[in-house]
Amino acid sequence: MNSPYHDRKVIVTGGLGFIGSNLAMQLAQAGARVIVVDSSVTGCGANPFNLAAVHEQVRLVAADIGDPAIAEEIAGAFAVFNLAGEISHIHSMRQPLRDAAINAFAQLRFVETCGRAAPGVRVVYAGTRQIYGVPQYLPVDESHPIRPVDFNGIHKYAATQYHLMWNDMGRIDARVLRLSNVYGPRMALSIPCQGFLGNFLRRALLGQTIEIFGDGSQVRDPVYVDDVVDAFLLAGAADDARSRVWNVGGAEPLSLASIAASLCRESGAPEPVLRPFPAEQKSIDIGSYSTDTTLIRRELGWQPRVSFSAGARRSIDYYRGELAHYLGDGADACALDGRPLAV
Amino acid sequence: MNSPYHDRKVIVTGGLGFIGSNLAMQLAQAGARVIVVDSSVTGCGANPFNLAAVHEQVRLVAADIGDPAIAEEIAGAFAVFNLAGEISHIHSMRQPLRDAAINAFAQLRFVETCGRAAPGVRVVYAGTRQIYGVPQYLPVDESHPIRPVDFNGIHKYAATQYHLMWNDMGRIDARVLRLSNVYGPRMALSIPCQGFLGNFLRRALLGQTIEIFGDGSQVRDPVYVDDVVDAFLLAGAADDARSRVWNVGGAEPLSLASIAASLCRESGAPEPVLRPFPAEQKSIDIGSYSTDTTLIRRELGWQPRVSFSAGARRSIDYYRGELAHYLGDGADACALDGRPLAV
Repeated sequence: MNSPYHDRKVIVTGGLGFIGSNLAMQLAQAGARVIVVDSSVTGCGANPFNLAAVHEQVRLVAADIGDPAIAEEIAGAFAVFNLAGEISHIHSMRQPLRDAAINAFAQLRFVETCGRAAPGVRVVYAGTRQIYGVPQYLPVDESHPIRPVDFNGIHKYAATQYHLMWNDMGRIDARVLRLSNVYGPRMALSIPCQGFLGNFLRRALLGQTIEIFGDGSQVRDPVYVDDVVDAFLLAGAADDARSRVWNVGGAEPLSLASIAASLCRESGAPEPVLRPFPAEQKSIDIGSYSTDTTLIRRELGWQPRVSFSAGARRSIDYYRGELAHYLGDGADACALDGRPLAV
Repeated sequence: MNSPYHDRKVIVTGGLGFIGSNLAMQLAQAGARVIVVDSSVTGCGANPFNLAAVHEQVRLVAADIGDPAIAEEIAGAFAVFNLAGEISHIHSMRQPLRDAAINAFAQLRFVETCGRAAPGVRVVYAGTRQIYGVPQYLPVDESHPIRPVDFNGIHKYAATQYHLMWNDMGRIDARVLRLSNVYGPRMALSIPCQGFLGNFLRRALLGQTIEIFGDGSQVRDPVYVDDVVDAFLLAGAADDARSRVWNVGGAEPLSLASIAASLCRESGAPEPVLRPFPAEQKSIDIGSYSTDTTLIRRELGWQPRVSFSAGARRSIDYYRGELAHYLGDGADACALDGRPLAV
């Protein structure tokens, strides 16, 4: 086995979630000793079924990343893939303190724990394009000004800087990916507030009419989860990549109308309809977005390989067989829970 | 009395500190009903003596700004001047969680409290130039990229965005000042980690040799506290200033050597010496800095009126009479305290 991860201990935080579980599976298949750390916070997308196929190869630690006791799990790790967090921008606007606790405070504790438990360990942080806010130009490169438009963006930016600061202090070896809209198998289709792609997919799978907010001309560059997993694997395997920050996005800037049309074509769902933006979504909408991926292509040799139509087909094929595991209890997941978070 | 603050209720958080107390005094003299909210966190610079001269005109509430119970104080306020916080970059690197609790988490609670207790209230937030990090050009304007180099900068940036976000949500009317190096009467000279100006002043006043880190050519633009108070008063009084962000700095970019020389001239202290940067300071040093104040001059008619030599003279005159109140217990203030903070 010539994977750089073969027989190495790796940590995946948020490994019960969408991207984390896909990554954990790839790592397990590469022969890594995978430890998933996930506390299954309500509304964040953890789904035990995501790891059902590899549950014998992956060790699951049910713990919050802010808990210093996870140091013993991290000790000796070759790499940490840090994907734990709340991704919903809407949730962050409804409960800013909750978002701060999950996405900032717990992350600050976590980088400290990593540096203490495994000095110099590689930590690949799952950042987000949301920190750029409304694009001042397209496609957006890593030098684009930072101006988040929601609490999630503020806290994801803070957590990014925590990683880079701990890196600069010599405690960890941090690398950051800033992800565009990711889609594919194992998304939490039952959390309407997690973004438009999950909503589109759910409605397409249920044969319901997809509702597009706005006039449908808004652009996104969806990136298939396998391509994102590749980016994580390359980012963690690279030598001499301290404090590097890379944007990750899809190859095709597509209008929401064409994204919806692809999903309908693949699923047989009825034709999409246009709807005015609800106020809650409009206030944090960033308009059109597409990613300049020049840097990660050049530095890591990464490229997105899966077209949106192919990825849509693969996603629909996956969910067709497993839909019951992904519909959950619907809108309840956005009511969040009131339990005090460890901050 | 034609002050816009006359007979109006105003809140000053951090009002026992350096800038806050100077501002509270000016507001009291303008006939405002001043409420100071200050929890006297160790190491942050609160000094009851700062308000001794106006203690009968100013109501002091000993409370943390993160405490929701201060809503009753804020209700009905015309303006909130929000200066509470930890300003030491060094402290933030030693205790990042403490800095997050004080400068980010408590601020998030505070803006929520303001919006609830006094919907639409004007809140002027005391930001910092530190969020820009190492200047990419000089002088630095408000469009300069954000790239803080220490935890203090990360959290002050987050708090800035909290204010702007709550503004955009229609809850408060936020205005932000980004302050350069402020100096003058009522600085906490006993906290060595609060920056070079307090250290220079303390040594000059004690007749000790000022130690300059580096070769002395590094540039800062010290701004006298009365000028900064003017900026706060103008920012709070302006109509139609929602979500405005203004840089505030001194009129003269000066080398550290010339700053030290002025202080020695005014105080009679021995000639300064050059010292290599200690590692702790070097790691978060931002090089030279000067402020582009075009925006605040144009939009608020503000300008710095006090030259550094005049400000140095006024400062030394002030402290000569009150030095015992400002030397405190010296380096102990930087040991911080270990008590759990309300987060």
